[in-house]
Amino acid sequence: MSKVITPKEQDYSQWYNDLVIKAGLADHSAVKGCMVIKPYGYAIWERMQAVLDGMFKATGHSNAYFPLFIPKSFFAKEAAHVDGFAKECAVVTHYRLKNTPEGLIVDPDAKLDEELIVRPTSETIIWNTYKGWIQSYRDLPLLINQWANVVRWEMRTRLFLRTAEFLWQEGHTAHATQQEAIVEAEKMLDVYTEFAEKWMSMPVIKGTKTASERFAGALETYCIEAMMQDGKALQAGTSHFLGQNFAKAFDVKFLNKEGKSEHVWATSWGVSTRLMGALVMTHSDNEGLVLPPQLAPQQVVIIPIYKGDEQLAQINEVVSKITKTFDADGVRYKYDSTDHHSPGWKFAEYELKGVPIRLAIGARDLEKGTIEVHRRDTRTKQFVPIEGIEKFVKNMLDEISTNLYKKAEELRTNNSHKANTYEEFKEILDKKSGFVWAHWDGTSETEEKIKDDTKATIRCIPLNNTQEEGKCIYSGKPSKQRVIFAKAY
Amino acid sequence: MSKVITPKEQDYSQWYNDLVIKAGLADHSAVKGCMVIKPYGYAIWERMQAVLDGMFKATGHSNAYFPLFIPKSFFAKEAAHVDGFAKECAVVTHYRLKNTPEGLIVDPDAKLDEELIVRPTSETIIWNTYKGWIQSYRDLPLLINQWANVVRWEMRTRLFLRTAEFLWQEGHTAHATQQEAIVEAEKMLDVYTEFAEKWMSMPVIKGTKTASERFAGALETYCIEAMMQDGKALQAGTSHFLGQNFAKAFDVKFLNKEGKSEHVWATSWGVSTRLMGALVMTHSDNEGLVLPPQLAPQQVVIIPIYKGDEQLAQINEVVSKITKTFDADGVRYKYDSTDHHSPGWKFAEYELKGVPIRLAIGARDLEKGTIEVHRRDTRTKQFVPIEGIEKFVKNMLDEISTNLYKKAEELRTNNSHKANTYEEFKEILDKKSGFVWAHWDGTSETEEKIKDDTKATIRCIPLNNTQEEGKCIYSGKPSKQRVIFAKAY
Repeated sequence: MSKVITPKEQDYSQWYNDLVIKAGLADHSAVKGCMVIKPYGYAIWERMQAVLDGMFKATGHSNAYFPLFIPKSFFAKEAAHVDGFAKECAVVTHYRLKNTPEGLIVDPDAKLDEELIVRPTSETIIWNTYKGWIQSYRDLPLLINQWANVVRWEMRTRLFLRTAEFLWQEGHTAHATQQEAIVEAEKMLDVYTEFAEKWMSMPVIKGTKTASERFAGALETYCIEAMMQDGKALQAGTSHFLGQNFAKAFDVKFLNKEGKSEHVWATSWGVSTRLMGALVMTHSDNEGLVLPPQLAPQQVVIIPIYKGDEQLAQINEVVSKITKTFDADGVRYKYDSTDHHSPGWKFAEYELKGVPIRLAIGARDLEKGTIEVHRRDTRTKQFVPIEGIEKFVKNMLDEISTNLYKKAEELRTNNSHKANTYEEFKEILDKKSGFVWAHWDGTSETEEKIKDDTKATIRCIPLNNTQEEGKCIYSGKPSKQRVIFAKAY
Repeated sequence: MSKVITPKEQDYSQWYNDLVIKAGLADHSAVKGCMVIKPYGYAIWERMQAVLDGMFKATGHSNAYFPLFIPKSFFAKEAAHVDGFAKECAVVTHYRLKNTPEGLIVDPDAKLDEELIVRPTSETIIWNTYKGWIQSYRDLPLLINQWANVVRWEMRTRLFLRTAEFLWQEGHTAHATQQEAIVEAEKMLDVYTEFAEKWMSMPVIKGTKTASERFAGALETYCIEAMMQDGKALQAGTSHFLGQNFAKAFDVKFLNKEGKSEHVWATSWGVSTRLMGALVMTHSDNEGLVLPPQLAPQQVVIIPIYKGDEQLAQINEVVSKITKTFDADGVRYKYDSTDHHSPGWKFAEYELKGVPIRLAIGARDLEKGTIEVHRRDTRTKQFVPIEGIEKFVKNMLDEISTNLYKKAEELRTNNSHKANTYEEFKEILDKKSGFVWAHWDGTSETEEKIKDDTKATIRCIPLNNTQEEGKCIYSGKPSKQRVIFAKAY
């Protein structure tokens, strides 16, 4: 069978890739580094979008849409920003092709006066626009989000985790005061945390990035960090306090209540299709995807096992009663009574696709008044009375959701270590992987040297972190708290 | 007041532009030809998306996502397609910028081996992908839709109607037989028709395009044509039967039930943010937008008229009962009790924004137990008992919806003419504008000459058209049916 997945113990990276492709989440495309998101993968992304969009609106944000292209000169206006993105920009230089006897060429007469950059992120074009929208304190706060595609040219790509083009949302807000902007940045970090934990069943640690890991142009970058099953960290969302950097670069001022002109304060925040990679790597196993019921396109698949039309008709009747209740309860299900494939093939297929619960029902089950219930996360099965099956399924969906979170949390606990010396630190990273909590002297130099040495980076300085005296594992200089080091995606 | 709109009788084009900008639907951006869709405009587009997406799913389609970029060589594979799009392609030639002492430049060392085109439409990249997805008749039909941004470089742009970048959906389906593909193309035209008429309150005529107006690469282009208030036509959606052109260009074959290899049959179909322009120009007036309740972000605005907190508290209490019912009934409303602006300012603002119904409630109304109801489409007002206001509002929303459709239909009837001679034809176009039903000899030459002469194009050959003997108005050659000529957006 071509759908066999490389076991993760054998080759974690190949396991991930097999899974994404064989479960029908995404494909490589003919364009280097760009992926195709297939219908099943896109259905999960659509659910993520719907939930996040609802959370953004509930916190007062509106959606809008800004141009795909950014004039090159805009990038030059914020120094840190251009340094951060210049090396990965797709650049549009011409606006016409031309058929010639030698074939289709780029028309040399259609060269743009100023090159356009395909947005890698939209701070510059948006703040250039905000200049026209903000005059007075009455126009603030401006709370806007955009769902969009962005392009960051990458040489080494991996489906969902690192692609040249990806889909994301980017919030861009404008505020009258520094304090308000910081509150906003933290609030959106909380929204991301709730989404990760409640909807993805994925525990995360909230923190701030070190100066060298900050978003290009931010004064503070907040992040949530999750641990994948191989112990590596994955940054699942970021929220930036941008200070007045972009307001100054694009000259966006407002008249405050006292009639004084001031620069506006800014935040931006985003999550992307990278979350799909995080979802896969947090819960899945060697049989395929394991999806939390909250995000699964289908929460239940029902498979009839029958010989002949008469048996199928009897099963259909029982199933139609069950699905009626599912409809009323908002349970997402699929009844797969097609005869292209055998029940065994279907069992394997829906396990691969991570459907949380499988119900199988055959002639003998009808006689006994039972149904076979298979649970994807634990891969256990049991027979359950048809009477009341709907409630049983609903409870089991909740259990699965809770169990997935717990398992992920346990994994993180088991793979979190304290290191007090550099030797210890390196040994843990070599032998155990995971998160290493260690003291650090707060300098970029030390951070850089540890990274060069071990490939581990500081994932975050946790919020509300325990304060304790200690010594930097590398320099021995004094430190007041441990930070989280890990190898990361 | 800066929100005054140029009357449409004075300058229709300026009226449209004023309206789009002043009602907060969209803005010009710093990138030539690209627009910014502002929150209010985007909220309408989101409702359009949600409704259309539901209709696509109800007809069996799934969403997916394909790359933004298309390798140049892909375009060359379908001859008609490249001819149609080569002249308006944004071309990515480099993938890096570089900071130099002279400023930020495109890094000459980062030139792509093959240039990438920002998709103007996705047939080529999608059919290149489908090659890997389709092997057997069991893989068909493949019914996929994509929501995306596309770029067609335009020199003369107008907000929503013609922009270099726009948002749209593009359906791309693959079928085992010609007949099935034709049925699909016609089915999606029906979906668009239902959307236009039921959700936009905009009557449309279904038809096919002439050969010269067909989509580049299609064997048949179906379209819906609407009439704007100035009598011009606007193509509101198209659905294409692509035959086997793209399957042949990208070598997409399947094994049929008999085990024989055949090329796949294709359709594609799309509507775009152009519909926003159609919506504005179908219903709006000199006071601002007029939105059909089905698509209005807010269907009702409630404005309290009060002096002091005590009066406001009394009004709040009454309003909260009304809005509770609105919530239960799914009526979208806004209660604007902010005191930034006067009631008069608010009245004008929500008229400008096209909110279908305005409820104003003051202290005297409370005494009398009535509420002032203002209807945006007719600009009439009346006092209505508070008791039962919810039902009254719901009925009025339905009436508005029906009335908008009727008014648009009347406009179209009053501006549809038959012309039997070329003199008559030209006179109508000069003096009356609108749709002109006339006989045509079926040749592209005649079509072209009439266009050069009068700027009118054949908008469509209506489906189920009345068959009648006649003579081409231009060439005098025999014709079996009238087609619709008009000047168009």
